[in-house]
Amino acid sequence: MSVETLGRTGDSLNIPAEQQAPTPERTFSAINSYQLTEAIKSAIQLEIFTAVGEGNTTSATIARSCHASERGVRILCDFLTIHGFLTKQEASYFLTADSAVFLDRHSPAYIGSAIEFLLTPRLRECHAHLTEAVRRGGTALGEGMLDPENPDWVKFAQGMMPMMCRSAEIIAAELRREGEAHKVLDVAASHGMFGISVARQNPAAHIYASDWKNVLEVAQKNANAMGVGDRYHLIPGSAFETDFGNGYDLALITNLLHAFDRPTCTKLMRKVHIALNAGGRAAIAEFVPNPDRVSPPVAAAFSLTMLAATASGDAYTFTELESIAKAAGFARVDLSPVELGINRLVIAHR
Amino acid sequence: MSVETLGRTGDSLNIPAEQQAPTPERTFSAINSYQLTEAIKSAIQLEIFTAVGEGNTTSATIARSCHASERGVRILCDFLTIHGFLTKQEASYFLTADSAVFLDRHSPAYIGSAIEFLLTPRLRECHAHLTEAVRRGGTALGEGMLDPENPDWVKFAQGMMPMMCRSAEIIAAELRREGEAHKVLDVAASHGMFGISVARQNPAAHIYASDWKNVLEVAQKNANAMGVGDRYHLIPGSAFETDFGNGYDLALITNLLHAFDRPTCTKLMRKVHIALNAGGRAAIAEFVPNPDRVSPPVAAAFSLTMLAATASGDAYTFTELESIAKAAGFARVDLSPVELGINRLVIAHR
Repeated sequence: MSVETLGRTGDSLNIPAEQQAPTPERTFSAINSYQLTEAIKSAIQLEIFTAVGEGNTTSATIARSCHASERGVRILCDFLTIHGFLTKQEASYFLTADSAVFLDRHSPAYIGSAIEFLLTPRLRECHAHLTEAVRRGGTALGEGMLDPENPDWVKFAQGMMPMMCRSAEIIAAELRREGEAHKVLDVAASHGMFGISVARQNPAAHIYASDWKNVLEVAQKNANAMGVGDRYHLIPGSAFETDFGNGYDLALITNLLHAFDRPTCTKLMRKVHIALNAGGRAAIAEFVPNPDRVSPPVAAAFSLTMLAATASGDAYTFTELESIAKAAGFARVDLSPVELGINRLVIAHR
Repeated sequence: MSVETLGRTGDSLNIPAEQQAPTPERTFSAINSYQLTEAIKSAIQLEIFTAVGEGNTTSATIARSCHASERGVRILCDFLTIHGFLTKQEASYFLTADSAVFLDRHSPAYIGSAIEFLLTPRLRECHAHLTEAVRRGGTALGEGMLDPENPDWVKFAQGMMPMMCRSAEIIAAELRREGEAHKVLDVAASHGMFGISVARQNPAAHIYASDWKNVLEVAQKNANAMGVGDRYHLIPGSAFETDFGNGYDLALITNLLHAFDRPTCTKLMRKVHIALNAGGRAAIAEFVPNPDRVSPPVAAAFSLTMLAATASGDAYTFTELESIAKAAGFARVDLSPVELGINRLVIAHR
């Protein structure tokens, strides 16, 4: 038997679970999944994808560019090839569509900085205590990621901004299609990109950004850098406690509701409802699983992050988000067909 | 647009990397891969699969059986469904072929104990320093997993035994087909299953097991439990330093060579060669990647474990194993076509 024909075992990894003959390989691979986290983190830290994008294709030249060992680079690049983040021809490595667009630092859509938040020690620690979280029904670590003093939200604002830019642009365009907004509330603005995108697309819009003071420093900086700083206003403090004011045409609630239970979400949406003008809209960007809660995979899987890292957060289905918004007083709630990747856009009309 | 049709994003996760339109989802999922490690670990610890196998299908009944919260169980079971370790119909969960055979504690092929070794803190710590390992070309943590005092090898012997049983039976049968062995050397015997299986299939065989003293206690216990204790002999100490004696018909070198560089492997194989009779065989069970080093995926990916956890170990191709054995004096080296799952069987003839 030729060693070239050994590909059989891997092929089975993509067959639906119901149709597979049992093999310990999938369990072994699932237990070892954390290795992919470490590998992609190392590749980002060492700028492997940037080196390949610059034309270094062999482990020797990549190693030289990344100040790493040839042996280490060869093994890491083979691992990244197995997992679809590089391709390999003979001894040469090449970027995939994903790694060229998102992981080469020279790409305008580079998102490698996401590891600064997604792999923050606190978040990994929350997951390391997942068994206890399943027992309790919520994070095993106090308030999990929701401690108001948690500096990780500054890391979120800094690290996750690039991953959100495209969605923010698309949402702003979609919202504008439905009507001009002059006064815009950005609840838990974080990096600010959702509000900033609205301001950039509509020169008449003023943005009022609510978030913790240290987080808003990042948002203001981004607003200034993107030329909308003079129309950017800050509301520092907890979104549950600060005074939003009123007269808003539009409120943005992006990737926030998942952190809380339904009564808390309703309370917040009621506060937003009061702040909106008649005819105003609340735009909710969220992980929205289907009613089966197991698809689409990335949105549905996000519930686990909330179980590990919050007391009672969840990824809500559209029906759940609709009922939250209606309980808060909104008259009509729509799921936008607009394509955002990981998130969906839900629009609640006052 | 109906929320039922949102499956689109997940489907793309199984398309070969070269053919995919870029999306940040795969990078996001890869960074978060460690969540699957934590989820499968929690499910094993809480005995979720055992509870489902006993006929508990809803999150409420599974939670009661596992002494966990319904909410935590629902989110964990959804996550396991997304990753193919459960199926879901309406609100009911069912075992897949894999989880029924390997993860239900009532199954004779249960391998859940593998997490005791695969997720040992030392091994995870080695991977947490992967970036430094890539820079150096070997583990960032001293001798990595190869510190002779490392108690993890007792955990290996205890935890990995069930995962090795089937391979051990198949290898013993395959070796017996080619000839009876009376005196058998089991190098780095660990749990002892490879030698024990030979002894069980051949009542004339005596096994001489080499490993650290504390590890051999596990092997002897298994040999006694399986009725071959009176033909089981111990050679405690480092395989590189102890006296194997001679007159062996067969030597077993299972999942050992990958921990060392090629000169060290050659040195060990030379010692084995000397201990064998004329016509004796050395049976090597290993992760054997194809010459491309990126397939089959599980075997090829194992190189990363060696980079993280050893100074200079690797997953060797058949050509490399052949050249190691020939340099050690073996006349002929064959890659057996026998199907072992993760490992391959290589037979070197004296």
